[in-house]
Amino acid sequence: MSLTIKLHHHHLSNNLNLQALNKTKLVTSYNSKLRPQKPVNPLVSIVYARPTMHSPPRPSPAQIKSSLIDPDGGALVDLVVPESERARRVLEAEALPRVKLTKIDVEWVHVISEGWASPLRGFMREAEYLQSLHFNSLKTNDGTIVNMSLPIVLAIDDEAKERIGSSTNVGLVGPSGDLIAILRSIEIYKHNKEERIARTWGTTAPGLPYVEEVITSAGNWLIGGDLEVLQPIKYNDGLDHYRLSPQQLRKEFDKRQADAVFAFQLRNPVHNGHALLMNDTRRRLLEMGYKNPILLLHPLGGFTKADDVPLDVRMEQHSKVLEDGILDPETTIVAIFPSPMHYAGPTEVQWHAKARINAGANFYIVGRDPAGMGHPTEKRDLYDPDHGKKVLSMAPGLEKLNILPFRVAAYDTVQKKMAFFDPSRAKDFLFISGTKMRNYAKTGENLPDGFMCPGGWKVLVNYYESLQAEEASQQPAVLSA
Amino acid sequence: MSLTIKLHHHHLSNNLNLQALNKTKLVTSYNSKLRPQKPVNPLVSIVYARPTMHSPPRPSPAQIKSSLIDPDGGALVDLVVPESERARRVLEAEALPRVKLTKIDVEWVHVISEGWASPLRGFMREAEYLQSLHFNSLKTNDGTIVNMSLPIVLAIDDEAKERIGSSTNVGLVGPSGDLIAILRSIEIYKHNKEERIARTWGTTAPGLPYVEEVITSAGNWLIGGDLEVLQPIKYNDGLDHYRLSPQQLRKEFDKRQADAVFAFQLRNPVHNGHALLMNDTRRRLLEMGYKNPILLLHPLGGFTKADDVPLDVRMEQHSKVLEDGILDPETTIVAIFPSPMHYAGPTEVQWHAKARINAGANFYIVGRDPAGMGHPTEKRDLYDPDHGKKVLSMAPGLEKLNILPFRVAAYDTVQKKMAFFDPSRAKDFLFISGTKMRNYAKTGENLPDGFMCPGGWKVLVNYYESLQAEEASQQPAVLSA
Repeated sequence: MSLTIKLHHHHLSNNLNLQALNKTKLVTSYNSKLRPQKPVNPLVSIVYARPTMHSPPRPSPAQIKSSLIDPDGGALVDLVVPESERARRVLEAEALPRVKLTKIDVEWVHVISEGWASPLRGFMREAEYLQSLHFNSLKTNDGTIVNMSLPIVLAIDDEAKERIGSSTNVGLVGPSGDLIAILRSIEIYKHNKEERIARTWGTTAPGLPYVEEVITSAGNWLIGGDLEVLQPIKYNDGLDHYRLSPQQLRKEFDKRQADAVFAFQLRNPVHNGHALLMNDTRRRLLEMGYKNPILLLHPLGGFTKADDVPLDVRMEQHSKVLEDGILDPETTIVAIFPSPMHYAGPTEVQWHAKARINAGANFYIVGRDPAGMGHPTEKRDLYDPDHGKKVLSMAPGLEKLNILPFRVAAYDTVQKKMAFFDPSRAKDFLFISGTKMRNYAKTGENLPDGFMCPGGWKVLVNYYESLQAEEASQQPAVLSA
Repeated sequence: MSLTIKLHHHHLSNNLNLQALNKTKLVTSYNSKLRPQKPVNPLVSIVYARPTMHSPPRPSPAQIKSSLIDPDGGALVDLVVPESERARRVLEAEALPRVKLTKIDVEWVHVISEGWASPLRGFMREAEYLQSLHFNSLKTNDGTIVNMSLPIVLAIDDEAKERIGSSTNVGLVGPSGDLIAILRSIEIYKHNKEERIARTWGTTAPGLPYVEEVITSAGNWLIGGDLEVLQPIKYNDGLDHYRLSPQQLRKEFDKRQADAVFAFQLRNPVHNGHALLMNDTRRRLLEMGYKNPILLLHPLGGFTKADDVPLDVRMEQHSKVLEDGILDPETTIVAIFPSPMHYAGPTEVQWHAKARINAGANFYIVGRDPAGMGHPTEKRDLYDPDHGKKVLSMAPGLEKLNILPFRVAAYDTVQKKMAFFDPSRAKDFLFISGTKMRNYAKTGENLPDGFMCPGGWKVLVNYYESLQAEEASQQPAVLSA
C-alpha cells in the first residue's frame, strides 16, 4: 500500500490529479457509471455501485453485508492431510516421481493449502489457467463465478516432464529436499511465458520483479492437479505465529464478535497516514451502525522485490505501531498474508481482495495504484493509478465485497501531522515517498513530527543503518592491492 | 478459417497433434472438464459442456437451443438516425467539434451502428474498455454478462482532444471529410497502447498486423460515447448488397423458416474441405431433428493483412462455390461480416462468435487456431492452436451459443477428394497450405483434383496472376539507366 508515498514523484505539482484522489473529488472524477451510494454518512459515500454499460442512471443497489462473509465456493478449502493419515500419505509420496519446488512455489503451496484461493484445490490445470488468464475468474461446478485473476501455476522443465512420464500423481519436494505435498490427477500443459506475462502484467518489458525471479528461469510446462499437503507449511523464522490461516482468522473474528471486518493489504511500513485512514474507516463503520468492526492489518509475507522493506523489519515496525497506541490492539488483528507479490496492478489487486474474502473480510480498502510500481523501462507508472480501484469495483466474483477507496493522507505542515489531503491548500501538504523516507533514515535527518510513531521509525532507522553498513562492507576494494 | 491450410507447416509429420484435431480424438484430448455430451448422434458428441473447476464429474447440462437466438442484451442495437430526423441531426453535427476517422474507424462505426456488438451503443468509455480488457465481458444494467473480448475504441491525438475542449458531443468525419456520425456524452481517457496490446494479443512483439495498421500511429487518448450514425454506412465497392445487417440476416432466416443457424467465419477462399465440413454439419443438424438448418457463410469484410486474399476476390470465389453447387444456395446465405480483423486468436474468436449471436446464429463452427497467425518474430504459432476453441467454450456470455469444433479435412490422395482426416492412414493425406495454394496458382501447376471447385479456383488463379503482373511491373529498374 505504497499509495501516499508514491504520489510525491508524480503529482505534487499536479492539483488536478491530487484532487481526483481526494474523497469528494474522487466521486466526480469517476465516470457516471461508478456512482457513489447516497451519502447516508461519510463512509458510505465512498462505497461504489458496480459499473454497468452506459445508460440512464438507476438507483444504486450496493449493499453493505454484515458479519462474516462466505468464502468463495461456499466452504473454505483445507488441503492439509489429517494427522491420522499423514504416515500413510508420506509413504505413498515417497514412491512417486518428484517435482522440486522453489521457495516461491512453496509459498503458493501454503496459499492454496489454507484456502486463500478457495475454491481452488491445487495448482491450476489448463482449463483454470485459461479462465484466469482471459477472464480473471473461474466458473465453479454450480455455475457460480469466483474471482481468480492471477494464474496460480507450477512450472516444470522438460526433464521433470520426462521423469513424470505417465504417472498420475507426483510428490512435491521443498528446496531442501523434504517432501511437502502430493499433486494428484495431474495435467501437464504448455507454459507460454510470453503470453502469460503479457496477459497478467499488460507488458512484456524486462525488469518485472516476479517475472525475473520466477518466470524467466521456469520450465516450459505447467503441471496442474489436486494438492494434498503432508503437514502445515512453516517457515521457522520467528514469524510463524503471525501466519494465521483463513480458518484461524475467521475463528479470531468470531471470538471477538466482529460484525464487520475491514482488510488493509500492505507491503510497506505503516505511517500515521495509513493509521489515520484505518482509524477513520473504523469510526465510519461504527457510524454506519456496526457494533464491532475489526481491522485486519494484513502485510504480505511472500516474495517481494529487493528494495521493499523485508518482512521481519515490517512486522517489528507494525508491532511498534500497536504498542505505541497508533492502532488499537483491541480492534486490530495483525497477521501475515502468505502470498508472493506479483506487482501486477489491477490484475493483482483482485487477488489481494479475493483472498481476504476467504479470510472473512467484507470490507477491502483499496488505494491509489494498488500492487503498482514504476514501469520497468519507461519513466511512468506501469499502471494508471486509478485502474486498480476501478477494475476492483467491476471484477467478476467480487460483487459481495465492499470496496473502500483509499483517501489520500499526506503530511500537513500547518497542523504538523498526517491528515487527509485538502486540495484547497495543496501547498501545505508534504508527500513523503519511500525514497525520501529512506533518505531521512540514511542521513539521520529528523522525520517531520507526527509522520510515524517514534517506536516504528526507530525500527526503520536501524534497518536502513544496517543496510548502509552492509553496503559499505561490500564496497569493491580494488585499490587495496 | 485458415485451419487446414495452415496445418501443413507444423503438423504434417506430427500424428499426435493431428489426432488431437480429429473429432473423436479431440474429445479425449480435452481435459476431463471439457466433457462431450452423451453421444446421442455424431454432431452432439462434439458439443462441449462448459468447463468447471476440477472436481468429480457431473451430468453435463449443455443444451441445444432451437430457432433464432436472442441478441445480447435482449434487443438488437440500431444506431442509424431515422430518415425523418436526419436533416436536423446533420445540422447539429455540423456545429460540433470534429474527429476525423480512419477507414478502419469507419468499419467499427459500421459494426457498432448495426448492432453486431449489441448491447454496446458506441465506442467504449473507460468502464467498458477496462471490463473488456480484463474480463472479456461487460456487465449490463440488469446484471447480465455479455461477451465483449475486443476493446472497440476510438483513438484521438492531443490536438483533437484540445479541439474538443469541454464539448459533450463531437461529430465523426470519414476519411474523405463527410460527416458520418455524432458521438454523444463523450468521455476521453488515456490510451495506454502497450497495455492494450499486451492484454489483447498476449504479446507485444512488433509485426502484429492490426497493431501496425491501427494502434502504433494512433493518438494517446481514447474517446467513448453514444453513437448516432447519420446514414447507413456504404462502401460503394459493388459488394454492399452482401453487407446484410444483423437485422436483415434475422429477417432472412425467418423468411427461410430456419430452425437452426450455423455460422462459418472465414477470411480465406472456400475449398472443398470447408464445404465438406459445412455440408456435414447440416446433415448432422438434420439428424438431430432440426428441420431447416441454414448456413451463414460469413466472410470477414473489414481490414485484413496484406497477404490475405482481398474481399472482392473472395466474394467472387465464394459465389462460384455456390454456382458450382458445392454449397446449396437454398440453405446457404452468403453475407459480409463488416468487422476488421485483429488476428488476436482466442481473444478475437470470442468476438467473432458473439457478433454472430447478434446476427441470429445459435451454432458456431470453430476451427484449429481461429484468428491465429504465425508469431511475428518467432518461428511458432502465436497461439496454442487449441486455445481458441477451449477459450470459446469457457467464455462468459457465450453460454447460449452451441460451439462446434471443426473437424480437420485434408486432401485424401487415395480417394482423390477432400475428406476428414483419418489418422490411421495419415500418409494418404495432403495438407495444402495457403502458401502452397498460391504456388500452385503462380506456377500454373494443377491443383489436386477435388481440392476446390474449378470455378472458384479460376478466380484465384486470375487473382494470383494479376498479383504477379503487378509485382513484375513494380520491379526496381536500377539497371535501365
